[in-house]
Amino acid sequence: MNIKITGTGSYIPDTIEKNDAFHEHTFLNTDGSAINYPNNVIIEKFQAITGIVERRYAKDHHNSSDLGFFAAERAIADAKIDPETIDYIIVAHNFGDVKHNTIQSDMLPSLATRIKHSLRIKNPKCIAYDILFGCPGWIEGVIQANAFIKAGIAKRCLVIGTETLSRVVDKHDRDAMIFSDGAGATIIEATEDEGGILAHETASYTYDEAYYLHFGNSNNPTLSKDTRYIKMEGRKIYEFALNHVPQAIKTCIDNSGLDIKDVKKIFIHQANEKMDEAILKRLYRLYRTEIPEHIMPMSIQTLGNSSVATVPTLLDLVRNNKLENHNLSKGDVVIFASVGAGMHINAIVYKY
Amino acid sequence: MNIKITGTGSYIPDTIEKNDAFHEHTFLNTDGSAINYPNNVIIEKFQAITGIVERRYAKDHHNSSDLGFFAAERAIADAKIDPETIDYIIVAHNFGDVKHNTIQSDMLPSLATRIKHSLRIKNPKCIAYDILFGCPGWIEGVIQANAFIKAGIAKRCLVIGTETLSRVVDKHDRDAMIFSDGAGATIIEATEDEGGILAHETASYTYDEAYYLHFGNSNNPTLSKDTRYIKMEGRKIYEFALNHVPQAIKTCIDNSGLDIKDVKKIFIHQANEKMDEAILKRLYRLYRTEIPEHIMPMSIQTLGNSSVATVPTLLDLVRNNKLENHNLSKGDVVIFASVGAGMHINAIVYKY
Repeated sequence: MNIKITGTGSYIPDTIEKNDAFHEHTFLNTDGSAINYPNNVIIEKFQAITGIVERRYAKDHHNSSDLGFFAAERAIADAKIDPETIDYIIVAHNFGDVKHNTIQSDMLPSLATRIKHSLRIKNPKCIAYDILFGCPGWIEGVIQANAFIKAGIAKRCLVIGTETLSRVVDKHDRDAMIFSDGAGATIIEATEDEGGILAHETASYTYDEAYYLHFGNSNNPTLSKDTRYIKMEGRKIYEFALNHVPQAIKTCIDNSGLDIKDVKKIFIHQANEKMDEAILKRLYRLYRTEIPEHIMPMSIQTLGNSSVATVPTLLDLVRNNKLENHNLSKGDVVIFASVGAGMHINAIVYKY
Repeated sequence: MNIKITGTGSYIPDTIEKNDAFHEHTFLNTDGSAINYPNNVIIEKFQAITGIVERRYAKDHHNSSDLGFFAAERAIADAKIDPETIDYIIVAHNFGDVKHNTIQSDMLPSLATRIKHSLRIKNPKCIAYDILFGCPGWIEGVIQANAFIKAGIAKRCLVIGTETLSRVVDKHDRDAMIFSDGAGATIIEATEDEGGILAHETASYTYDEAYYLHFGNSNNPTLSKDTRYIKMEGRKIYEFALNHVPQAIKTCIDNSGLDIKDVKKIFIHQANEKMDEAILKRLYRLYRTEIPEHIMPMSIQTLGNSSVATVPTLLDLVRNNKLENHNLSKGDVVIFASVGAGMHINAIVYKY
């Protein structure tokens, strides 16, 4: 028995928020002091580091669970399965449903419950739960689905990553420009087909790193201390990722019995273009190997960082030949890897 | 290999909130209209149905993750294990950390990350994640730990249920009196010892039932529509539980190959005394058997409904001989069962 991805779907909101939209913002330092550059310089610097030119925001009347539902419908259609045959619906997110212009996270019922309800699945043996695991949540959901199939309690799982980060950003923080909304979904199932998940690797670094990403106050000290936003220590995260992600990917490749030369594509969490490029460089340096052309599909330039949604969305785009110079053929070995709040890291070696 | 609970711990907050404390509340119907009884009648009726005389509230400076950490420390000490040997920390909750007198849920980082950080565990191979699964979250966490051990990716897991429901209740809703704060934790591990988890059963009824428990507005229509609270359709939940929980428990017992006569104790989610008694009656009626004495330990009278925390806390109390007429001996067969937001139901048949 092998465990394979038999369907993918994504939902990329129509609303495009270009960098220009941030010209009117009053960006402040974390101590509330003014930033000694005009906004056009701030935005140029931001774009040079992150690669982000524009990002997507959900429609005002949509919530994270709606986005996840749209992506799930597409993954089910792509896999050509009867939704009543799904054993698990696993939904990764980090903020629940946050209605437009409100500050509360709504997770009662869980997003998995809402999505199963919207999919009109009746089968009570389809177990629906949410996982909170930072940006690596979707990959971890796949690893959990893999474990349930191996343990004999599931045959077919729907794993979704969905997030509306635009609802939790601090307008006075330059990092607000990074975050985006979106959802990606996949059907994972037991199959006699060759390939599938060959190895996986997860690590949680919480001793010093637990609060590198956290929920904190606005950079604008006049705003209520009772309202919190997504906050990150960018420099520390960058260094952490460079120190740990390449080695985690290498360990995963080693455990699969393969070599870096066998790898056709690396799907990495779209956090920051420069960071992802630096991770790739370090990974290939570990093998003393040149980086092949077109190894790392990227979507951050136009889709921003939609947390748990980036990797499944990227996979869906490449499977559907929507990213130039990127396609997949049967037998191709690919890597999924992510890093985020926790700090958690994970990776999967997968044979397509 | 068997999979057993090798340590338990719980944290029951010191602060006792007696029913008397609700005499000053202005209770309203869901449509905002006045209730045609004085508060002493409302409170007497409430006590007669739910059995709740008092409940526990967390200290103002403690959050849900703190309560979970205190319970986890005790479970680790009880199991006499080195915390660095834990492979998974699974934390069930439904609202994240809600600081006293604020309305936002804080789950960045996840509560599992916070608890691992507080436990000062360094091992990055100890994977920490949160699960959202309504009140049955702790039991589902145990079922997931069981699957990870069976799949060969874990040997020892820490499963925690923690909640501060006092932070999400609507003061104008009589149901506010039901909810309580607390945490329970267990160590689950692979062992050569006899017994352990013999069977488990889970179901998610989301087609009509998804919003029986939900996050909604106050019964007081003058309060902000942007602030939401835990809300439940008590009558529907009662009927749902009676129609589905006894059969789910029976299926689980059948799958274990045992009979109801083999069962020594039934640890059921402390939602409502009358409901739990009615579930028990129906379960034994399915077997056309008399209910034995002292079969169902109860804590709701003094601890209220602390959601995910009730079952592990009850187990910890009985293991430590803190509930009159209840104790456990090696070889005893017990049942864990829960029902809650989703609507989810689960059950485990366990040989002590």
